[in-house]
Amino acid sequence: MLYLVGLGLSYKSDITVRGLEAVRNCSRIYLEHYTSILMAASLEELEEYYGKPVILADRELVESGSEEILHDARTQDVAFLVVGDVFGATTHTDLVLRAKRESIPVEVIHNASVMNAVGSCGLQLYNFGQTVSMVFFTESWKPDSWYDKIWENRKIGLHTLVLLDIKVKEQSIENMARGRLIYEPPRYMSISQCCEQLLEIEDARGTIAYTPNTPAVAISRLGSSTQTFKAGTIEELSRYDAGEPLHSLIILGRQCHELELEYLLEFTDDKEGFKKAVIEDQEFFKPAPWVPPVEDED
Amino acid sequence: MLYLVGLGLSYKSDITVRGLEAVRNCSRIYLEHYTSILMAASLEELEEYYGKPVILADRELVESGSEEILHDARTQDVAFLVVGDVFGATTHTDLVLRAKRESIPVEVIHNASVMNAVGSCGLQLYNFGQTVSMVFFTESWKPDSWYDKIWENRKIGLHTLVLLDIKVKEQSIENMARGRLIYEPPRYMSISQCCEQLLEIEDARGTIAYTPNTPAVAISRLGSSTQTFKAGTIEELSRYDAGEPLHSLIILGRQCHELELEYLLEFTDDKEGFKKAVIEDQEFFKPAPWVPPVEDED
Repeated sequence: MLYLVGLGLSYKSDITVRGLEAVRNCSRIYLEHYTSILMAASLEELEEYYGKPVILADRELVESGSEEILHDARTQDVAFLVVGDVFGATTHTDLVLRAKRESIPVEVIHNASVMNAVGSCGLQLYNFGQTVSMVFFTESWKPDSWYDKIWENRKIGLHTLVLLDIKVKEQSIENMARGRLIYEPPRYMSISQCCEQLLEIEDARGTIAYTPNTPAVAISRLGSSTQTFKAGTIEELSRYDAGEPLHSLIILGRQCHELELEYLLEFTDDKEGFKKAVIEDQEFFKPAPWVPPVEDED
Repeated sequence: MLYLVGLGLSYKSDITVRGLEAVRNCSRIYLEHYTSILMAASLEELEEYYGKPVILADRELVESGSEEILHDARTQDVAFLVVGDVFGATTHTDLVLRAKRESIPVEVIHNASVMNAVGSCGLQLYNFGQTVSMVFFTESWKPDSWYDKIWENRKIGLHTLVLLDIKVKEQSIENMARGRLIYEPPRYMSISQCCEQLLEIEDARGTIAYTPNTPAVAISRLGSSTQTFKAGTIEELSRYDAGEPLHSLIILGRQCHELELEYLLEFTDDKEGFKKAVIEDQEFFKPAPWVPPVEDED
């Protein structure tokens, strides 16, 4: 049996009781280690908690080495652990497809992920549009396909969850060219960098999907003991020091109801300023009123 | 301390290890009992598992009786349990706001909910738009504000998660009028009724947000041992017997990628027919090509 087990957001004990029982009975345990990290538990702590060694699975192993992971899974129990819930990334549905093709039974044990736990900032999950990912810009590479998606969401009044890039086990171009297996220290995008990149692309495009005064919420270390929410405009948050990773950002849509706003005001020092930003943004991005077509007078 | 604890989707052991520890140490335990139900555990089983009595909290108690729930929570630990994750419904953020106003510390312990666990049907969570709720129609009351939301989602190619109505502790109009506290048996909307209501409103509106041939996925008993996915057109699913509750439905958007489709094909007997429906729907709802504005020749 292949068990795909969500670990939740932060603590080793965020695993479900059912998930823990399954993992402890597995003969091999892989931990997916490139789309997210577990904030409050080290590998050693997990190994002690499960009573078993845990193999870190990087992108290469998951995408090309599924034979290793699935090896013996018809007769042995194998666990594939994912921080958050299981189906955030495409590559994991691919692993399930491969298992099914080899007639390996699969059981999924779900958990909380950023996709549903962001609800704890007070914004209704119902009113979120498509989710986007923000990657680290370089001098020559500034992918901005997320811009149109934010625009589409905001045209119909929806909030956008922006997931921030993490780089784990990354090689420098020089080390890659020379074939040296030396990896850079892990990098996690900050709220301020994300907001700067948002403003940079809006500046370059100039089509006003949002403005520097558009309200947003910084989500830091969601689900951990130091979880922090900060409400402010994109411009304000581009100067905000959010501390340790992981971070996500929500760009507000027009559909922000009274109770949602009241909840968000707990996360800002400038309540009046934030309220004003929300109302002005709602007003500015209000769809144009419908005008009846002019009758042809000829 | 007020603990808000998500129970996950189905089994009593779907609670997290951290959640279970918190609940077992609480002096009072409430279970929210009107937005969802735990499929594979009875109240008695939960009480035995927690080693404590569990108070069922109906809508009235949560919305008007928060004093009872929060009573003593400054000095005692109180648990408020929610099937799925904690922040699906607005009323729970309201409970947190009340607690904060009374300086009661609040801790949230997240879990999986339908909002993220639907990812297990193979559709990417990134490509979902706003979520809608489908309520039971009566002869005289057919609320259809969800129609425009599905339309908005589909205009930008996104999938729509449709949550199906449940009626727990409902009074008949006659019993209500006579003040008799007699409740009707619980009702859970079926996939076929949801699809019939979808077709009825499309028929009445005629603005083609979707057609009878638009592809959809029926999600039944998500996260339980009898979990079932069924892929088909809305018209096909209006004749589908999905069995025991709970159910949800996903209406596909145009943004259905190859790997997503390959995964969905596992859930249909008519693979060629479903593939054809997806391609035809994508073609039919393709946005019109951009035409440059005609120069004024005067």
